[in-house]
Amino acid sequence: MRYALGVEYDGSDYKGWQQLGESGCPSVQATLQEALSSVADAPVSVVCAGRTDAGVHGECQVVHFDSDVVRDPRGWTLGTTTRLPPSVCVRWCVPVADDFHARFSARARRYRYRLLNRQVRPALYRQTLSWERRALDAGAMHRAAQALLGENDFSSFRSVQCQALHARRELQSISVARHGEVVEVEVQANAFLHHMVRNIVGSLLLVGAGEKPEGWIGEVLALRDRNRAGPTAPPQGLVFVGPLYPDQWQLPAEVTL
Amino acid sequence: MRYALGVEYDGSDYKGWQQLGESGCPSVQATLQEALSSVADAPVSVVCAGRTDAGVHGECQVVHFDSDVVRDPRGWTLGTTTRLPPSVCVRWCVPVADDFHARFSARARRYRYRLLNRQVRPALYRQTLSWERRALDAGAMHRAAQALLGENDFSSFRSVQCQALHARRELQSISVARHGEVVEVEVQANAFLHHMVRNIVGSLLLVGAGEKPEGWIGEVLALRDRNRAGPTAPPQGLVFVGPLYPDQWQLPAEVTL
Repeated sequence: MRYALGVEYDGSDYKGWQQLGESGCPSVQATLQEALSSVADAPVSVVCAGRTDAGVHGECQVVHFDSDVVRDPRGWTLGTTTRLPPSVCVRWCVPVADDFHARFSARARRYRYRLLNRQVRPALYRQTLSWERRALDAGAMHRAAQALLGENDFSSFRSVQCQALHARRELQSISVARHGEVVEVEVQANAFLHHMVRNIVGSLLLVGAGEKPEGWIGEVLALRDRNRAGPTAPPQGLVFVGPLYPDQWQLPAEVTL
Repeated sequence: MRYALGVEYDGSDYKGWQQLGESGCPSVQATLQEALSSVADAPVSVVCAGRTDAGVHGECQVVHFDSDVVRDPRGWTLGTTTRLPPSVCVRWCVPVADDFHARFSARARRYRYRLLNRQVRPALYRQTLSWERRALDAGAMHRAAQALLGENDFSSFRSVQCQALHARRELQSISVARHGEVVEVEVQANAFLHHMVRNIVGSLLLVGAGEKPEGWIGEVLALRDRNRAGPTAPPQGLVFVGPLYPDQWQLPAEVTL
């Protein structure tokens, strides 16, 4: 039997979704698999919609796993959450067809990046906010970002460690808006390259701070050269909002196109 | 010289604003005074606009203190924040007239309470959300809450430990609204009694869950009996948004009426 899970996590204390090499710090995936295996009383492996880096959060990550154990979805959801640390929970569980695949069935992914834009570092919401001292023009950032829309080669915004076969991705929407002291970037694409959102945000920051003109983002995109873009923005402001699937899979509304 | 400070804090790891008795857990006030004293190189005591309980957060607490040390406001703000733990920061500092008093000059206080309303406990934003499993009717809670408006005796919503001389307070506004899975209560009064917001929220929860009718809140208010109201809602969902002062004090806009 194949199940899909919606998973929420605070990535602050994790080395990312996937364990890479030896480390005292666990991965979200290993933590989740341990809890699921305890509920199933047998080893469970999960496949996720999109791996997140160390310190990046998940609002509705989706995974699938196979198990012969008979548990109703509510049992998987509550039983697994009980066995997870406070920083991770299972939002929902639904049985899915055998050909559903959390990664390959997803048609789009959504990310949100939040920056506190003021002189003083964040205290109250510091786990999920990055911090930028320089006054940012969110309107200029929004206009500049629109140059990224459509199917493009995103080599300029791709980590040198990225292992994807090619750099073409379809950026479906991107918006930048100010809410008081917080500047929020929301972006949706069919898929993302390694560090793509953080490299886009790091470049938009240069526009927002007035160091680069609005047209610069489109120029950087066209150059297909990582060395021409801005720095990688820090991870703690980034949330993987979740993937989106066609409605044929009958998943919850929050992950359905 | 008298200064006013805007202070932000995550109350998760504190025994509240003020130290009460012996405890291994510091108070926000003691933590702030230690940092200010280090900047001033002399003992500094602060007076706050409103004390918060253990686990309750502050978005813009206001304090005043006196110091003969000459520092520009930017120096107080950044120098003090550098000496504070990550859970506390100084948002701003302004010199004020000698007759300004953080507590007695305030004309109103604002609080916000956030509840995650779903089957599964929060993970990502758990530091600032309380959790309610039962499906809540936020509209019913909002309508019920309007019975509290105006100058009333709030004995029914007052902690037995409350040391205020009387229980009359002017509740200036209260609203309850749903934002997806989050139910948010915003309330403003000239001043609050001990546990007043949490006792109001705990009572509104009974209305939201359908255990009590909308008219019950007004009935409880009229009874002036703490034993007739609902339980005290947990602290982690509560944020002291901040006090409000007349514009004569020339404080930042976020704390000016």
